[in-house]
Amino acid sequence: MQSDTNYRRLVKNYQPKKSKEDEENEFSSLIAFKNVLKEVADLAGQREVVAENLQNQVLQGILLLAKNLREERKKALNQGASLTQSLHTQIGTLDRAKRSYEKAFREAEKAIESYHKADADFHLSRADVEKQRVNMNIRNSQSEDAKSEYANQLQITNKQQQQHYQIALPEVFNRLQELDEKRTRGMKEFIKRSADVEYEVSPIIAHCLEGIVKAADSINEKDDSMIVIEKYQSGFQPPGDIPFEDLSKPDPDAANNSQTHNSSTGLNHMTGKGTTKDKLKKRVGIFGIFTGNKVSETATGSTGSSNSTA
Amino acid sequence: MQSDTNYRRLVKNYQPKKSKEDEENEFSSLIAFKNVLKEVADLAGQREVVAENLQNQVLQGILLLAKNLREERKKALNQGASLTQSLHTQIGTLDRAKRSYEKAFREAEKAIESYHKADADFHLSRADVEKQRVNMNIRNSQSEDAKSEYANQLQITNKQQQQHYQIALPEVFNRLQELDEKRTRGMKEFIKRSADVEYEVSPIIAHCLEGIVKAADSINEKDDSMIVIEKYQSGFQPPGDIPFEDLSKPDPDAANNSQTHNSSTGLNHMTGKGTTKDKLKKRVGIFGIFTGNKVSETATGSTGSSNSTA
Repeated sequence: MQSDTNYRRLVKNYQPKKSKEDEENEFSSLIAFKNVLKEVADLAGQREVVAENLQNQVLQGILLLAKNLREERKKALNQGASLTQSLHTQIGTLDRAKRSYEKAFREAEKAIESYHKADADFHLSRADVEKQRVNMNIRNSQSEDAKSEYANQLQITNKQQQQHYQIALPEVFNRLQELDEKRTRGMKEFIKRSADVEYEVSPIIAHCLEGIVKAADSINEKDDSMIVIEKYQSGFQPPGDIPFEDLSKPDPDAANNSQTHNSSTGLNHMTGKGTTKDKLKKRVGIFGIFTGNKVSETATGSTGSSNSTA
Repeated sequence: MQSDTNYRRLVKNYQPKKSKEDEENEFSSLIAFKNVLKEVADLAGQREVVAENLQNQVLQGILLLAKNLREERKKALNQGASLTQSLHTQIGTLDRAKRSYEKAFREAEKAIESYHKADADFHLSRADVEKQRVNMNIRNSQSEDAKSEYANQLQITNKQQQQHYQIALPEVFNRLQELDEKRTRGMKEFIKRSADVEYEVSPIIAHCLEGIVKAADSINEKDDSMIVIEKYQSGFQPPGDIPFEDLSKPDPDAANNSQTHNSSTGLNHMTGKGTTKDKLKKRVGIFGIFTGNKVSETATGSTGSSNSTA
């Protein structure tokens, strides 16, 4: 889930700098923004929980099951191959025993024939006939031995074949079937677990979204603009009317009036004293917002139209 | 939200190939997997809806508001600068009018003094005195005109100053305050809208998760392994016991028995007929799963231990 790091990055990149100003003087919008960031960080945390659980509860489980199934399947297939090989070997032994028996039987038949031939031949000595009889007996005995060995191997083979088809091989196939069912069950389980991992965080995610809405609702634009006004207001009253100075009627107030006039018109050419300067500086703070905006020439021209005297 | 394309890519990459096999013969796990992919595609769709709504309903709105606020703020600041400039210009005009009046007044005083001096000087001609009187009258008249212009400009200035501080400038500040409140309201609105965009998809996402769980629950490992058995079973009965062939007691069934024996031991050295070959081929299909697994030498050796006769 790549979104985790994105959420975290968002929170990190947009975290407001700790300002040195009074914390209680904060704008509701700034407080709300910080709270939204907190909720987004929580969302990031939830996505991380999902990633971690998918990793630990699902992915690890799948890897473990896959490894186990691979090993067990190999074992079963090896066993199946081994059983088949073993039966083939036994059938080979039986075939050789049978061929030995057939060969011995034919040789015994030939020996019997030779004995009968010798016995019927009056020209042969008793010794020669006796030799053929002994040979016949040996061949008959060998044939009987081979027959017995063949019967023995047949019994062993039939027993192994029965055991192979009725017990051993079915066991291997049952094991393979079990493994396949285990694989399918694992798939079922891990799909459900994945969905559960997502499910589990959904109430917390819903809670985070509620927190975001709550944070937004706490924004009060009227309060915020009042903070701006409180912060930047000069506290000055707007200047009163500039008094008329009639030079033909000098009075004791003239000097004071003149001073008032000066401080009122002082915006243009300042000749005031220290205190006035301080006040002016503060006033510049609020009026300063206009200095960045140079008035275009046409604006100056149109407002200067009352400038008729020379 | 980068996860959209990731979801889509997941769905695309893991879509099973359309197989040519009967659709009704499908494994429940495969059907479930396809259904999970469908739900994941739906999840992708929901994330896309979120991305689209954030784009159209939030980001576009923010851009529009920001543009509007920037323009309106610039307009207000221009107006404030223009008003201040205009007042300064008028105060300059008043200053010049006042200085003109002072100069004219002093010149009139001097002319009065000169006339009085000339009038008191018995050595001067009447013409010279008359010249000084005329000059005095002109200067007095000029002084009166300048005084009148000064009074006129003072009236204009006071009117403008009053209008500036009581109406025009407050209007500009009110406009700026309105804009700030509009900005804050916008922030509130867009944060809530963002959360809503997420909220709106959450029931559908929950529904998708339910669909995934439902798909997983539809997996039946017993049914699936039965499909495998149905598909790969050979249909053969395990071979019966290999009969004993006693060469010393030939009977009419000997030929048949021999044939049965051959097809039973046929796994090793096949001498069967056409039909048997076909059957064998099918049987190899199921036994083929062991061919990939070569039995190790030790396994062969141990099972071949009953091979005692030569």
